[in-house]
Amino acid sequence: MNVERVCIVGLGLMGGSLALALRPSLTHLAIVDNNPKTLPAAHELADLATADLAEGVKDVDLVILATPVRAILKLLAQLPAIRPDGCLVMDLGSTKAEICRAMAQLPPVFAAIGGHPMCGKEMAGFANAEPGLFAGETFVLCENGRTAPRIKTAAHEIIRQIGANPLELPPQTHDEMVAAISHLPYLVSAALMQTAAAQGSDRLWQVSASGFRDTTRLAGSDPQMLLDILLTNRTAVIDQIDKLQGQIIKIKQLLLWGSDAELGDWLAETWRQHKNYQNVKRKI
Amino acid sequence: MNVERVCIVGLGLMGGSLALALRPSLTHLAIVDNNPKTLPAAHELADLATADLAEGVKDVDLVILATPVRAILKLLAQLPAIRPDGCLVMDLGSTKAEICRAMAQLPPVFAAIGGHPMCGKEMAGFANAEPGLFAGETFVLCENGRTAPRIKTAAHEIIRQIGANPLELPPQTHDEMVAAISHLPYLVSAALMQTAAAQGSDRLWQVSASGFRDTTRLAGSDPQMLLDILLTNRTAVIDQIDKLQGQIIKIKQLLLWGSDAELGDWLAETWRQHKNYQNVKRKI
Repeated sequence: MNVERVCIVGLGLMGGSLALALRPSLTHLAIVDNNPKTLPAAHELADLATADLAEGVKDVDLVILATPVRAILKLLAQLPAIRPDGCLVMDLGSTKAEICRAMAQLPPVFAAIGGHPMCGKEMAGFANAEPGLFAGETFVLCENGRTAPRIKTAAHEIIRQIGANPLELPPQTHDEMVAAISHLPYLVSAALMQTAAAQGSDRLWQVSASGFRDTTRLAGSDPQMLLDILLTNRTAVIDQIDKLQGQIIKIKQLLLWGSDAELGDWLAETWRQHKNYQNVKRKI
Repeated sequence: MNVERVCIVGLGLMGGSLALALRPSLTHLAIVDNNPKTLPAAHELADLATADLAEGVKDVDLVILATPVRAILKLLAQLPAIRPDGCLVMDLGSTKAEICRAMAQLPPVFAAIGGHPMCGKEMAGFANAEPGLFAGETFVLCENGRTAPRIKTAAHEIIRQIGANPLELPPQTHDEMVAAISHLPYLVSAALMQTAAAQGSDRLWQVSASGFRDTTRLAGSDPQMLLDILLTNRTAVIDQIDKLQGQIIKIKQLLLWGSDAELGDWLAETWRQHKNYQNVKRKI
């Protein structure tokens, strides 16, 4: 790689998986993490492991911010003072509009691009990291006022190396899309969990099977990550909630007043939509 | 087994899996299915394969009804005329109150019990059947006015043989529980699918990842099966929809007017509920 000296900030599921995937091709890997429990793993993996951002980003070509979104915003604000000479910056945050706005505020000596690998697990942390996490998955890139060609080249090279598929999107478009296919599914999963738990007995869990398990899987997502996501994508998320509420009301009306045929048509239409989604997904 | 002559009506995922699991221990297996595409597989598996109910249930000890719920109700109404001597009857239908009411109307020469194996896949049909489908899963049994000891014994023997765990529940309790852990998850999955499809472009599916895939998996469930479920469990399902709507409204209020701490508390509480559900499930 052209970029051989990299600092990854945040050794969680995403940063950790990226560190594992990139490690063989780097001459210098620094890891910044302020969790004392994570530091032993960081020391084993990296040339330099530290809780000090200034120490970690010293003399690297590229800084990859892999913390929850609001921490990324704070880190971006700190970079100009500790790297007055500038560097390449990329992030892996789950929402992109606020981060790209902050990137655009960096001094011109920086080159920055927003990134979001569209993969994950509900199990957070480096313990669940794996170098193959990104293979075959979509990796969104978001340009902003600081996206010089050299950071685009570096980002595409990293994406190629981890086997992901790059997709360039405007930050706002990205945030609206993930509100629909990621943040709303989380909230619905959480609402299902809360609804069942409110009437819950261990016997209810005993009767529950794989359908309940899968629809509530996202309810086990990291609360801190979700808080940052929801707070930085509030408008798009509320818009999706309104759309979902419309669908729920429609279902209730069909159950209350619809004919058997009308309800049947709605069920068949849902089935066709799911089939179409699967077909498109298979072709990608 | 004491019960050695069995007729399974409906060679779908459930009936087919049960036929595969029980086949080795039966001296006579009859399969009734009116789908011409299924009959070749039925002929291969069974001693007798037919589309004619009267032919299939002739001279068997036990009839297992494994069709969608409303078809089970019709089949139960036909049994007295074609088996005036009576027999043992069990079903695998997804809702139990209406079926158990119909079972209680059978002449006293019948002995009947409601059954519902709490497992499945979103892929319907015999092509997806497997003899191990029930192993380790909960199998609900519902007594009714015709549940004589001899059908209870037969049902428990079958459950033991397929490696499932029996759980006796009153039909109404069963229906309320599955409304919460199965029918509501389906509807929520369908609502998510409809919401995303309404704004859908292939690019939206490209960005979607495993979270969307898992939360919408149930949207691919068999529409005919779902129609019968919803029509025979309407009251409990609407009650669950109301509860879910309450949760969605609460989330929206938190996003609109809640403090960061309040939203964070709700996310953490959701996470704890999911963890508790997983822990209980693991111990079962």
